[in-house]
Amino acid sequence: MTSQRRDTRTVTVGAVTIGGGAPVAVQSMTNTDTRDADATLAQIARLADAGCEIVRVAIPHADALEGFSAVCAGSSLPVVADIHFDHRLAIEAARRGAAKLRVNPGNIGPLERFDAVLEAAAEASIPVRIGVNAGSLSSEYEGKDWPLADKLVASAAAFCQHAEERGFRDIVVSAKASSVNITVEAYRMLAESVPYPLHLGVTEAGTIRGGTVKSAAGLGILLSEGIGDTMRVSLTADPVEEVRVCWDLLAALDLRRRGPEIVSCPTCGRCEVDLIPIAEEIERRLSGSRAPLKIAVMGCVVNGPGEARDADIGVAAGKGVGLIFAKGEVVRKVPEAEIVDALMAEIAKL
Amino acid sequence: MTSQRRDTRTVTVGAVTIGGGAPVAVQSMTNTDTRDADATLAQIARLADAGCEIVRVAIPHADALEGFSAVCAGSSLPVVADIHFDHRLAIEAARRGAAKLRVNPGNIGPLERFDAVLEAAAEASIPVRIGVNAGSLSSEYEGKDWPLADKLVASAAAFCQHAEERGFRDIVVSAKASSVNITVEAYRMLAESVPYPLHLGVTEAGTIRGGTVKSAAGLGILLSEGIGDTMRVSLTADPVEEVRVCWDLLAALDLRRRGPEIVSCPTCGRCEVDLIPIAEEIERRLSGSRAPLKIAVMGCVVNGPGEARDADIGVAAGKGVGLIFAKGEVVRKVPEAEIVDALMAEIAKL
Repeated sequence: MTSQRRDTRTVTVGAVTIGGGAPVAVQSMTNTDTRDADATLAQIARLADAGCEIVRVAIPHADALEGFSAVCAGSSLPVVADIHFDHRLAIEAARRGAAKLRVNPGNIGPLERFDAVLEAAAEASIPVRIGVNAGSLSSEYEGKDWPLADKLVASAAAFCQHAEERGFRDIVVSAKASSVNITVEAYRMLAESVPYPLHLGVTEAGTIRGGTVKSAAGLGILLSEGIGDTMRVSLTADPVEEVRVCWDLLAALDLRRRGPEIVSCPTCGRCEVDLIPIAEEIERRLSGSRAPLKIAVMGCVVNGPGEARDADIGVAAGKGVGLIFAKGEVVRKVPEAEIVDALMAEIAKL
Repeated sequence: MTSQRRDTRTVTVGAVTIGGGAPVAVQSMTNTDTRDADATLAQIARLADAGCEIVRVAIPHADALEGFSAVCAGSSLPVVADIHFDHRLAIEAARRGAAKLRVNPGNIGPLERFDAVLEAAAEASIPVRIGVNAGSLSSEYEGKDWPLADKLVASAAAFCQHAEERGFRDIVVSAKASSVNITVEAYRMLAESVPYPLHLGVTEAGTIRGGTVKSAAGLGILLSEGIGDTMRVSLTADPVEEVRVCWDLLAALDLRRRGPEIVSCPTCGRCEVDLIPIAEEIERRLSGSRAPLKIAVMGCVVNGPGEARDADIGVAAGKGVGLIFAKGEVVRKVPEAEIVDALMAEIAKL
């Protein structure tokens, strides 16, 4: 069902390719103080464990540059320097090992400053993300009486053209809003108007439940249309959660998979075992697994045997018991208390 | 951005209209034992508080019918009887106050039994959902060498036609799979092939995080195309969570709103206050509110003032302080510890 991926130019961020049909790359951002390189590196290690492929680090002021050097030197993931307002920080970050720069050319002052950033990126052979946000539009566009999506896209496209005229094409583009509809509209227009890979995100998406819903809906719509080459899910939460949601979404759309898929039924009045803790416990025990298995955890006989047969491993529960399925066949019948262990034992065999 | 809603026939479920451009109705399903009417009614009250508009109750066996009568009599929400395998339970439920029946005609045996269900529904003047699931396809279609989405749609459309030929058109249709892509494909085809309102859902979506992502992506894609008249988010979790996710998704797509929208930034190395607990606490304190306000909770000066100005009430934090915005103007500057109370005080003024 998912559309063919949009064709784009490619850029490389460390060892990761973005665009040109490469797998959609998963990003997140540290929320430690960049001056504290040890804390930042520890968080990067947790993000990498969860499946993060590119990590972004804010450099809010010159005091953060020394920490940033240490982070680049010690990180297992390519590090993107995120800079606002002061273009000199971007130039310095390029010299200190950034694998990519993220700037909003609209908030660093006269365009000559953007030119200096592009020069530094070209010298370091790293790409630049031109990242326009609804909350920080350039003054040239902010006042216009246009729909917000048009302002975002016009602003991003103008900066791309400015860079091209200076011979710089190592570009990733983003144009985010906190509204799902405006974000989707902006990215659809962007996909038509620039040849560069797109970084997807809904800004300020919110807390863990609301932000997950907004991001999954907005990014889901775009990814299903073949739009998007790298993504970040923004949550007001531990950034590890952002990475998990990215992977859940890529798996949901059959774009990429990292670890098992758990298909489990909503409980209802037919359920004769206590299914929620069983499903949660299986999810917990499998959280470190990278095996691309489909596991069905089903509470009754309505859809249970059908889904369990279709999965690699499954359980269809009856009154206080579970029928364990492996590759479509019933292999065991166990009491409720042994369902989790029996499923895990069958999974271990695969 | 969201497409015009697809035009459909309408049905009424108690006082709720489904289809024909009516607001997308929010559903959930009880997971109590239906025989325990008090527990079921208590859960329905919690679901109604959270914004559930139609509630579904399983009737797995004749023992549940007495409880079902009491539930229908005591429920503030219209109650849908969910029946598999035994069509006599559906007939009896129609007589006992069900506001709608949900059956999968493929799993109740010969079609004469479906006819008897339609007759009982017509007599009670209630609609029937023809609900086909990938995990419980009728034998006629299960064995066919077709894509699963085609089997689901062909099966649902054939049952609709069967009902029409008997003069019954008070129909809602669903065709769910546990795969997002197959579900989306099936509903797009269904929207082209039947004139009835559609009940959206991804079956067995999974645990709270994975299930939220799958449902928000799948239902988000469909709703953004104007497809879908009522919805249930299936989660292996407390059904109240299902209702919350429904509302978050409808709000994210600007289709419906129930209570405040919180726009909050992901934290990053620029954040100089402890933002996660502030955003969580504001979400918690506003969880009972129905005011359609936009609240921005922003950690720094990059997007903070822009988003906070754009919201009804907002805070843009600096080092240990917060600037409180109301309707685009700064109204107060408070220390970090007072941000939540100051925001709540401004919200109370509106």
